[in-house]
Amino acid sequence: MAGLLGSLPCMTEFDDALALDRVSDGVRRGRLGEAWAIGGAVHGGLLMALAGQALGQHLAEHGGNASGHDSPVAFSAYFLSPSADGAAELRSEVVRVGRSMSTGQVSLLQDADGEPVERLRALASYGDLARWAQPVLREPPRPRMPAPDECAPAGAAPAQLRTAMPLMERVDLRLDPATAGWAVGRPSRLGVMRGWIRFADRRPVDALSLLFFLDALPPVSFDLGIMGWAPTLELSAHIRAEPAEGWLLVEIATRTVTGGLMEEDALIWDERGRMVAQSRQLAGIRLPSGDAGDVRGARDVGHARDPGDARNAGDAGDAEDSGDARGVG
Amino acid sequence: MAGLLGSLPCMTEFDDALALDRVSDGVRRGRLGEAWAIGGAVHGGLLMALAGQALGQHLAEHGGNASGHDSPVAFSAYFLSPSADGAAELRSEVVRVGRSMSTGQVSLLQDADGEPVERLRALASYGDLARWAQPVLREPPRPRMPAPDECAPAGAAPAQLRTAMPLMERVDLRLDPATAGWAVGRPSRLGVMRGWIRFADRRPVDALSLLFFLDALPPVSFDLGIMGWAPTLELSAHIRAEPAEGWLLVEIATRTVTGGLMEEDALIWDERGRMVAQSRQLAGIRLPSGDAGDVRGARDVGHARDPGDARNAGDAGDAEDSGDARGVG
Repeated sequence: MAGLLGSLPCMTEFDDALALDRVSDGVRRGRLGEAWAIGGAVHGGLLMALAGQALGQHLAEHGGNASGHDSPVAFSAYFLSPSADGAAELRSEVVRVGRSMSTGQVSLLQDADGEPVERLRALASYGDLARWAQPVLREPPRPRMPAPDECAPAGAAPAQLRTAMPLMERVDLRLDPATAGWAVGRPSRLGVMRGWIRFADRRPVDALSLLFFLDALPPVSFDLGIMGWAPTLELSAHIRAEPAEGWLLVEIATRTVTGGLMEEDALIWDERGRMVAQSRQLAGIRLPSGDAGDVRGARDVGHARDPGDARNAGDAGDAEDSGDARGVG
Repeated sequence: MAGLLGSLPCMTEFDDALALDRVSDGVRRGRLGEAWAIGGAVHGGLLMALAGQALGQHLAEHGGNASGHDSPVAFSAYFLSPSADGAAELRSEVVRVGRSMSTGQVSLLQDADGEPVERLRALASYGDLARWAQPVLREPPRPRMPAPDECAPAGAAPAQLRTAMPLMERVDLRLDPATAGWAVGRPSRLGVMRGWIRFADRRPVDALSLLFFLDALPPVSFDLGIMGWAPTLELSAHIRAEPAEGWLLVEIATRTVTGGLMEEDALIWDERGRMVAQSRQLAGIRLPSGDAGDVRGARDVGHARDPGDARNAGDAGDAEDSGDARGVG
């Protein structure tokens, strides 16, 4: 069966989105499709995976492949402007090929009125995951949550919501009912969201796809009752092991929400229970005025201050400075 | 008194280390001093602060200052090769000047046999911290620990150890006795270290210095009984508020140690109790062979596997791939 599938030209949606044409050394062309859009812009996790694909190919051409440095191990992306449906150019360079890691840089650009505009720039180190994944001396245990069949599929969302988020048709996402109350107006306000996730077309997960899945859940701010955009400003990811086939369990959480910025930490475990990836991002959030009191009601705010002062809230959500797209507009 | 101090040419050690000569647009020269060395290389936190200084000056020249974008908000550094005592060149570029943040890139290079060799490359976004620090809706509470006077000063370390770590003379570090057992051969094995810290010459702390303090404690792996180098491969920092004058409380922790790599999370609170900065780094660790069993004894390893397999351990500690210097050699 594996042999049969391997011999068929069965392009998955994700592989199709990551297809690149090599133009010259360090220059590749791809295409951002509206199938991966959410709220009007192309999803930031997909941009990271596409940039990671381009950089991986570039490093392989420059010696990294000979050393087996074919998987991202650390990946830090800065989101510079909102991406649009259409052609994209990937420019990559080698920073350093070392013995145990190769480090490079990659930019994703799109033409806007005839000028190349940078959407994302990233630094990343690639290595041989088989070497770095064993032995496991210590790792966060996978949280307990109901099995996928006992969770509500995100596909059950209202049609109007799904139309604004074609991205949600690319994945099969099953949120833990304990952290999905926001969808019916009852956020837990704990600042946590958990779910099982896989590609809708069952494409097997791999290291590169973890860059996508680390940012594929709705913003954790939904669980604080803050609905709306949460554009990523910066996201740094660590890939710690090649994931096993099957469902991934993603947990995101935030502990720090100040002045229109929040950090969002993500952890991913595979079906074996291995913690395969983690990330932290800084994202902008827009607070509905007067809603600050509700947010402070969450745990972990032992010494919140300026309770009534929400005058700066929402500064970060403006489109001018938002690169990544997540959330509903 | 403030006026008197302000009028005196009283250069502090940190300001001296961060002094830069502007050579041309985007090129500055500085000097790495052995006063900031630890274990034979210049401290990675100092490199980040120096790079942050250069990029801040560059962004100010290119419009960022007009918008008040004068403090690092997000800073992601990749460490490429071990730095040495001597001259350093800082090359910076503007990536994007936005309305609420300015993003740039900076490299730190040194001559090695007549060739410029890159020690560190970073992407960073600068902004107006006063705008982003308020209101505080949610933040991690500052952990309880004994007052500085009730903690053992790191200066009490054996003279032989202190000679290898001139950096430790630059700071006044008071470790929580509960997490300092490793210094006398009794690590807690919880994977946590906490301490009060300030500059030895009492230079006031500021946003830029937080890039230094985020990496100024000994590696958290010491608390797992893993003594030795823990070179930083990548560190991403978020600065969330300008710190108040006085002591900083730094807490570092690790939850994931696999195949010679660990993540180290750092949090810093100021004397008011504000969480002012946080970071996550990926660092190499070298496991003494046969010691894996002790490490696995730590909490949070509910499903550790391959218990006896330490054959890959220690790969990351080799000098060839280590950029940052921390720990004792």
